[in-house]
Formats: sequence, C-alpha cells, structure tokens
Amino acid sequence: MLIGKQSWQYTSRPVICATGTVGGPFEAAGALPQAFDVLHDDIWVGQESFEKAQTVFVEEAVKTALKKASLTTDDVQFMLAGDLLNQLTPSSFAARTLQIPYMGLFGACATSMEGLAIGAMMVHTQAAEHVVAVASSHHSATEKQFRYPTEYGGQKPPTAQWTATAAGAAVLTGSGQGPRVTGATIGRVVDMGMSDPFNMGGAMAPAAADTIARHFTDFNRTPEDYDLIVTGDLGQIGLPVARDLLKQKGYMLDHDLFGDCGLMLYKASQSVFAGASGPGCSAAVTYGHLLNEMTKQGWQRILVVATGALLSPLSYQQKESIPCIAHAAVIETDGGGHHL
Amino acid sequence: MLIGKQSWQYTSRPVICATGTVGGPFEAAGALPQAFDVLHDDIWVGQESFEKAQTVFVEEAVKTALKKASLTTDDVQFMLAGDLLNQLTPSSFAARTLQIPYMGLFGACATSMEGLAIGAMMVHTQAAEHVVAVASSHHSATEKQFRYPTEYGGQKPPTAQWTATAAGAAVLTGSGQGPRVTGATIGRVVDMGMSDPFNMGGAMAPAAADTIARHFTDFNRTPEDYDLIVTGDLGQIGLPVARDLLKQKGYMLDHDLFGDCGLMLYKASQSVFAGASGPGCSAAVTYGHLLNEMTKQGWQRILVVATGALLSPLSYQQKESIPCIAHAAVIETDGGGHHL
Repeated sequence: MLIGKQSWQYTSRPVICATGTVGGPFEAAGALPQAFDVLHDDIWVGQESFEKAQTVFVEEAVKTALKKASLTTDDVQFMLAGDLLNQLTPSSFAARTLQIPYMGLFGACATSMEGLAIGAMMVHTQAAEHVVAVASSHHSATEKQFRYPTEYGGQKPPTAQWTATAAGAAVLTGSGQGPRVTGATIGRVVDMGMSDPFNMGGAMAPAAADTIARHFTDFNRTPEDYDLIVTGDLGQIGLPVARDLLKQKGYMLDHDLFGDCGLMLYKASQSVFAGASGPGCSAAVTYGHLLNEMTKQGWQRILVVATGALLSPLSYQQKESIPCIAHAAVIETDGGGHHL
Repeated sequence: MLIGKQSWQYTSRPVICATGTVGGPFEAAGALPQAFDVLHDDIWVGQESFEKAQTVFVEEAVKTALKKASLTTDDVQFMLAGDLLNQLTPSSFAARTLQIPYMGLFGACATSMEGLAIGAMMVHTQAAEHVVAVASSHHSATEKQFRYPTEYGGQKPPTAQWTATAAGAAVLTGSGQGPRVTGATIGRVVDMGMSDPFNMGGAMAPAAADTIARHFTDFNRTPEDYDLIVTGDLGQIGLPVARDLLKQKGYMLDHDLFGDCGLMLYKASQSVFAGASGPGCSAAVTYGHLLNEMTKQGWQRILVVATGALLSPLSYQQKESIPCIAHAAVIETDGGGHHL
C-alpha cells in the first residue's frame, strides 16, 4: 500500500458511500448553501454553550451520512473524529452519543483528510466494513478558545481567516457506488518560522506545497493528472504563496486547476478577511460540494490537501513559531455519476 | 482483519522491533527505574516551560527507540503521537524536530494503545515499513492545564492520581525479532455519569470493563488465554471496580492476572494518592517494563488496556460528566526471548 516515501495507494478503491454536512447561519448565507444537508439558523442550536453546539453538529453530520447510506450506528465499526477544541471535546462527546467505537484524531484543519486517509486504509485492509470520518469546527467556540471572546470586539487584520461553523462526515466502505478514495499523502511538519496567528494561510502554505510536491513524486504524477487540486484553508494570502512555492519546485498550477476550500465557502460580501478556515471547512466543502462537482463537471480525479496549523494558544504565548502540516487524499469518480 | 464487532486480528503479527522510554526524577525514584532508557533529574530538562520539556521527552523516546533499532528518522514512514495537552503541543512540536510524517492522535491516557493499534494496522497492510507510536505526559504541564498551578498548593483527595512525567515509543515493523502485536480492540465511549475529575480511575473503570469484555467476545477468548491483563491507569479505586464489573459480566480476573500500569510505576512510599496516570504511564510501563517481563517470566500473551478520560477543563466547568474510553492491544512473544 505504501507508495513512494509517505503516500498510500488504495488498490481496492474504497468508496465514499454517503456524506453528511451541517452548517450554521453564516454558512447558509454563504456561497455554497447547497453544500449542506442541514443548515441551522442558530449557532447555539439550542445548547447552553458553543462547545455543546459543536457536539450537536458532529452528531448530526454523522447521523445524516448514515441515514443517506441506510445504515445504523451499529453497522459502522469505527468513527474517526477530530476538531480544534482542547481535548477534542465535541468529537469525544459526540462519540458518547453515537456509541460508535471511536478514535480521536488531531491535525488541526488537516484533520478532515487525516481521517479520510486512515478510514480508507481501514476499509482497504478489511479492518472495517464501514468507517465514518468526521471533522468539525464552530466559529464562536474557536474564537473563545484561540483568540478573544467575541463580545470583546477585538479587531483583526486582513490576513486573518474566519473559522467555519460546520461539520462534514464521510462514510467509507469497500464496494458499491460512489466516489473512490484511491490514494493519500501524509504530511510532515513544516515550520518556516512564521509566528503570526492572524496569518495562518501564509504559515501553512509551505506545508501544503511540501505535501503536494511529495504527492507528485510518490505517485509519479504531474498536476495535469488532476482535474482539481484544492487546499483546505490557505485563503487569499496562502494560496498564491503555495502556488509560487510549487512553481519553484517545477510544478505550474494555474488558477483553474488550483483552488482552496477556504475561498469557496463564503461570498465576497461576507467579512471573512482572507477566507474561511477550520476543520469543518475542508470537510464540508469536500463532502458537500466537490464530490457533487465531480459528477456535474465530469471530473475524473481530484486531490484534496487539507492544511493544519498545529499551534496552541500556549505555544504562541511561549513565542513559538507555527508548525504546520498538510494531509492529502485522492478522490476519483467511479464513472457512475450520482449525487451524495 | 476485522474480528467480531470492534477488534482487529493482525495475522502477519507485526513486530515491536525497538522501544524507547524516558522518565523524570520522580519516576527515577519510583518502583520501575529500570523501565526507562533515559532518566532525567530535572523536570524542565533545561527548557523554559513544562510544555517544551515534554516535547524533549517525546523526541528522546523516539530517538532512543530508533537508535536501538539502528534506524534513522528517514527509515520510518510515519509517526503516530499523542498527549494530553491542548492541541497536542508536545507531540506536534516533536514531529517538527523529528521530521517524520505525522498523524496526531487523541485518546487521553488511552492514546498509547490507540497508536500501537493503528501502527500495527499500517505495518500489517504494508502501508509502512516502519512506524513509530509514541505517547507522553508531563506531570507539571498537566497540573497547570487541567488543575491548579503547583505553586497554589491545592489539596487533593485520596482518589486523585499522579500524572507521570514520561514518554514511551514503540517502533513497529513487519518482520524480525521482538514481541508481536497480534490483535487490538478499539473502545467505545462509556460514561456512567461520574463527574469528579479527582476520581478518574472510578470514572474509567466501566470503559475498561466494556473493552475487555468486548475483547473476549470478539476473539472468543477467556481470561485464561492471557498471562497478564493490565489496564492503563485505573489505580487503586478503578481497578477493583473494573474487576467487579467484569465479574458481573461473567469473567473472573484474579489479582495475579489483572493489574494496572498506574499501580506499578511508583513506590508505596511516594505520595501519588490512588496511583499513576497519564498517556506516558501506560506507554512507559508497557514498552519499558512489561515487554521485558514477558521474556523474564516466560509469558506468551498479554493484553494492555489503556484507559482514557476524555474530559476537558471546559467540559467539567460546563457540568458535564466524564466520557471514558479504553483501547486494548494484544502483545505476544515470538519465542525468541530478548530484551528491548
């Protein structure tokens, strides 16, 4: 299964048999409302805290995906889940509700593809009949933990990004119809010494470029082998930096080919600074939008490169720079043509 | 590879080809100093913060294991690492130093066996030639984050546990000599409504019993099929509760057969209340002590059941009870007889 130095090729081509995506009101007013199966007009979803609200988002994303796949929680052997909050509180509490055997993952905003890659491996090696991988974020829970209380009204520079209130789940299985996960590249930590937590996109761009270049080498492919290469949340600052870095490595990725989930989720009229971010961003955009676009546009193969900034509020306070990572997954059409 | 409902059987019997364990001064003065390859007399190990010190522990555990296996970081495709701190700060920063492609895991004190189980799957399915799984904790970093600053001098009840300052790493590969990982059972979240963070052992005992009983069912085995069954850190309160719960489920585990890493690490004269805890506890005791005991005692097969309390300071403040989990791995001798 290992191909090259840090990649996996799944010859059995595990299937994403269903997905579930849940968003908040700001996402409903965004550029991709159709990407969400469930949209809430209340960021609290009736809960007493943002953290408990995010837990509900995770539960709903998983339940929605299972319902679409006509599965119960009993049919799914394992749940791979992660988020940005301390001790993965929303993921762990959702695992309590769902009662699916649970493995917690942390890759910051790269968690979505870390989960998809490990989940596809489990299905490939018949360690599971069905696995669900889910990643989530909640704007207000993240602000509260990483930045300032929203009520404080702290100003942000234009390089900042807006953490999405979203959860995205994918159910993987060994056969049937649906998009196929055919490969993955696991990133290593890249830290170019940037330390500004209000410019995550710039900090993460070298990690994205590193993983993408490694992916091409490991699979002996070029950008032309893909219909779309999309990063997780590099935003307006990070995406052009990643493009330049890849150019330096000899890979030309033009604007049609190379995009970013963080630049797709919201409208230009929404005040999201340099774009969207959060584990829920790449998960919801990939599972709720890109998989449908593959069918609509006739795309054969895309590469989703989820990008994560592995800082903590404490590491920032201790004057550390930001270690970043990117994990990539290859998704191919099975030629069937159907919406999730 | 899936066996029963939530277990894996690795028919290729991945090998633990080397381990590395690092401890602090309190561990050096404990009951198992010989379990550690490296013992520091300074909990800061020359660093400016406890978090940075813990990062050094992770790095040293991995480097020690690699050195013993005559491997470089380039020979290891993936590092599976986790700890208790927010955003896995020590694991992520160690991954930056080590430059091994990195997947972050969170299972609180169950992280050690979550990593060993996923790592063994990677080797089994030839997704890696070598994988390193590492789990760590630092007493003072944990106190600061989860409880009170040590300087505050807060008193603890006798049900509290002492987070170990320790890191344990295991390098897995497909062939050669060494103990074999032959199976695993991934836990589900069990929460019996306990909410006292100073009685983690009591809270985690039902999760341990759930995973152990599920393990016996999935593998169609009984306690007699093991030379030792050891939990991660149930301590003096949790272990007898787990024993009682297993008795109710029809499994008699007597005192010789059923132990706890948290009751092995320190001396009775050390003021650790109900015992040791932390992801580094089960990792160091398993990799540094139990694997050697297998050879010394002629044990054929042991079951290590790492136990985790998935609470966060925030979930406690929000009056939530403690969701708990336990992940188990089966380790068997290859009959060779050698020390790690």
